Parts: sequence; C-alpha cells; structure tokens
Amino acid sequence: MSALPPPPYYAVIFTSQRTPVEAGYADMADRMVALAAEQPGYLGVDSARGEDGLGITVSYWRSAEDIAAWRRHAEHRIARDTGRSDWYAHYTLRVARVERAYAWSREDGPQDPQA
Amino acid sequence: MSALPPPPYYAVIFTSQRTPVEAGYADMADRMVALAAEQPGYLGVDSARGEDGLGITVSYWRSAEDIAAWRRHAEHRIARDTGRSDWYAHYTLRVARVERAYAWSREDGPQDPQA
Repeated sequence: MSALPPPPYYAVIFTSQRTPVEAGYADMADRMVALAAEQPGYLGVDSARGEDGLGITVSYWRSAEDIAAWRRHAEHRIARDTGRSDWYAHYTLRVARVERAYAWSREDGPQDPQA
Repeated sequence: MSALPPPPYYAVIFTSQRTPVEAGYADMADRMVALAAEQPGYLGVDSARGEDGLGITVSYWRSAEDIAAWRRHAEHRIARDTGRSDWYAHYTLRVARVERAYAWSREDGPQDPQA
C-alpha cells in the first residue's frame, strides 16, 4: 500500500474495464508502474482488479503539473494508445486534490500522514 | 462503473488490506454500498479487490459536508468498528476534491462529464 504523505497532494483515479485481450497487457502495466515511479513528483500507486474485470489504479503526485508532465511522457502516450486499441472496453480518469488523509493498522492503530 | 458528473465534487479513496476473517464481511460490504446510495449527496462508487487481498473502494460525493454526514451515520460507524476488530489488517482513507474528469469507451470514444 502506498505511503501517506501529508496533504495537499494529487491523486489520479483511473477506473477501467478490461477487454479479454491479454497480449502485452501485464508487461505494459508493470512497465508503467516502474516508469511512473521514476517521474518527478511521484508519491506512490495502489492498484486492484477484481474477478469481474473492473480495475482501479490510484497514483499519487505532488502537483497537477507533475501529472501533466507524466501525461506527456512518450512511452506513457504509447501505452494509452494501445490501451484504447486493445486492452480497455471503457475507463474513467479523474484528477483530484487530496485534502485529508488517514491511516490505520492493526499493529499501530491510527496514524497521521508521515512527512 | 460509476457515472461521471461534472466537477467539482469529492472522492473518498479507501484502500485496504483484508485479514483472513470472512465472517460477516460480504454482507457488510453489500449493506454499506446500498446504505451509502441512500445518503444525501451520494454520486456513485467503484470497488475492486485483487487476489493479493488489496482492495480499493472510491465513493463519490457532492460535498465534503455530505461525506462528514455519512461518516456520522450510526450503522456506518458500527461497520467501521467491526472492520477494525475483524476484517482489516490496515487501511488508508483519503478525501480528495475532483477537479477534472474524463471518460472513454470503445463504443463512444471520449466523453465529457454528464450533467
């Protein structure tokens, strides 16, 4: 689970329904996670996909400008194009400013964001 | 997949790791989805959990006040308490203001938010 920096920062909420096409998908997904982590302002990512094919990936960024720069990344553009041609039936993307954050763990109880 | 209203609105991003405890969990999860949908300001929810036990649920709300009211709902409080005692190993919760939104579908191409 991604770290919890103190707000404000930004979240990109990507919700998608997959096609049955598997070719290239897992490699692309792994590559995008690795590449995103190298970008300026990247703060973390969480991703889950259920058996019904609905997936949610939330990536966290220091600023809206950092998100815009990642959006312009050439390899990321190619992945998005292939997503539309092959892997996704539909998706939504939302950019949101995180205003409050909170964590809880069985071991440590409630936790405030960490600087 | 949840509808796409025009921003601004709010997202509650709940990321959780489950314990192996299954008793009561699925019923509670279904009940909270149904109950949330009855609350003022509710706009939709998306949820996914992968085989690794990491789950992401994002619910959407008209305002931060609507989120605060849902947080105070008695049955929701009880579900949260049972979540901490039984079902979750750890979780993070973030409240974020959605500033931009975009959808794409294979049939219809890019779509703007719908009023």
